[in-house]
Amino acid sequence: MESVTAFAPATVSNVACGFDVLGFALASPGDEVTARPTASGVSIDDITGDAGRLPRDAARNTAGVAAQALLNLVGERRGVALRIRKGLPLASGLGGSAASAAAAVVAVDALFHLGVSIETLVTCALDGERLGAGSAHADNIAPSICGGFVLVRRSHPPDIVRLPVPAGLTAVVVHPDLEIETAMARKLIGDTVSLQDAIQQWANLGAFVDALHRGDFDLIGRSLEDRIAEPRRASLVPGLAVIKQAAVAAGALGCSLSGSGPSLFALCRTAADGERVARAMTDAVMAEIGGETQTYVSSVAPQGARVLPA
Amino acid sequence: MESVTAFAPATVSNVACGFDVLGFALASPGDEVTARPTASGVSIDDITGDAGRLPRDAARNTAGVAAQALLNLVGERRGVALRIRKGLPLASGLGGSAASAAAAVVAVDALFHLGVSIETLVTCALDGERLGAGSAHADNIAPSICGGFVLVRRSHPPDIVRLPVPAGLTAVVVHPDLEIETAMARKLIGDTVSLQDAIQQWANLGAFVDALHRGDFDLIGRSLEDRIAEPRRASLVPGLAVIKQAAVAAGALGCSLSGSGPSLFALCRTAADGERVARAMTDAVMAEIGGETQTYVSSVAPQGARVLPA
Repeated sequence: MESVTAFAPATVSNVACGFDVLGFALASPGDEVTARPTASGVSIDDITGDAGRLPRDAARNTAGVAAQALLNLVGERRGVALRIRKGLPLASGLGGSAASAAAAVVAVDALFHLGVSIETLVTCALDGERLGAGSAHADNIAPSICGGFVLVRRSHPPDIVRLPVPAGLTAVVVHPDLEIETAMARKLIGDTVSLQDAIQQWANLGAFVDALHRGDFDLIGRSLEDRIAEPRRASLVPGLAVIKQAAVAAGALGCSLSGSGPSLFALCRTAADGERVARAMTDAVMAEIGGETQTYVSSVAPQGARVLPA
Repeated sequence: MESVTAFAPATVSNVACGFDVLGFALASPGDEVTARPTASGVSIDDITGDAGRLPRDAARNTAGVAAQALLNLVGERRGVALRIRKGLPLASGLGGSAASAAAAVVAVDALFHLGVSIETLVTCALDGERLGAGSAHADNIAPSICGGFVLVRRSHPPDIVRLPVPAGLTAVVVHPDLEIETAMARKLIGDTVSLQDAIQQWANLGAFVDALHRGDFDLIGRSLEDRIAEPRRASLVPGLAVIKQAAVAAGALGCSLSGSGPSLFALCRTAADGERVARAMTDAVMAEIGGETQTYVSSVAPQGARVLPA
């Protein structure tokens, strides 16, 4: 039996108005996981692109845990050895642990011709994500597996709503030279929110979903407002307000933290707008934060995790 | 100059998953307001259908305040005298004060050929609603004026999103022999909510909006869950859980309080389902609460407030 390699893309979760429930997939970058069959258990052959920082112990690695969860769930006695190529920066807010877990379950599913449902893939990948993020929400996993915009109505069991992507909609993601641990960023949110903030948040999310269906870019722009996470995490990204302002001044519909940050995303009407916004955001990030900055301009990719040609 | 009569329908707000931001219009019942021109100011000629309980002082009457707000906003020096026919029971949770205010502004707009925008009608009617409800949210006003399902992304200034209504979708409303003052019901909610409840609420609202667009009745059903208001107001309606269960057992997609109650609404796939659900809910309300019960079965009416033929 040959090995199988799967790719799973970076994802932007929260998306300003959908804390813990909304995410979308980029076309790239992403992580790749190669699975080869073994007699039993899950092991890790190799990891590249992580500067040696990720656990090589499969039981402590998101991809390893996700692969094991899938083998367990289907009662597969054979095992897999994984090679992981991280294309995503660590702790970047771009769903890196989700991408590795998604690629792992898609590779294992294909390797053993399991043909499990999307919901099963999500459930197993979530087991890996829980390890990486300290909590398990499918708002990165589900778009990394499904592509496009995904609303996770519920994570356990998964109730996944795939949303339409208006033609032209373009994402810009800028990753500043910072790292934010998801678990730490999560603690900043607290356990309660004001009713008024919560009401505005669900008004925005409802309007955003409608706007995706109708291709109403103005309403997308008005709805890209975060009353929950961004105000509580703003201090983690120096100059956040300035960077946001630069994005909007350059024509972005809106700009906010990607996941728990430090990456920022913007949504734009066209690819041309995206290029202009990317330059403005990158300049602002360099001025406010400096260091090494990665910038990505991508459609909201209709395709999620997939097996790569051998 | 002749008088003008406008009708504005009853509305169901909150709709389980959209506290303070979502509502829909029934075809009937509703309130009617007749406006005739006067030299200046707003007065009330007559009110019927309220058993003498509503203020005859225009400055303390929702329709009077709404009419005055519109006259002020457009700088109209003439005045109006209003006749109000309440078709809606008072304090029923069916948007009675909103319907009177909506009918008033639509009648005055037509009487003086003002031709103001929907947003202006909503803003002025909200001035009346504030009087009746102790707070001003356009989740009854906007659907009463626009018809259909309406999401109010923001009330001040109004940002109104009209949502599609899937073919067949039928509303059942049962008004038990109870009265609940909106202002009192509001105090039960408090000022903060748990983050987990808030997240589930916006996940449900986002999914509900998607489901309306796609005509996905199953997802409508799964999304009709209230984590915010209904749990805190359940004690106001004896037997609420039993009534809800009866509705769902009879085929309803979901059932919850209409606005702040005491009325309950259910949404159903078809008119035939609606008739069956209406019988089951009425029977349950009679058994649990007793007294005089009004039951309405209606499409989600595409048309809202309108001028009636002379």
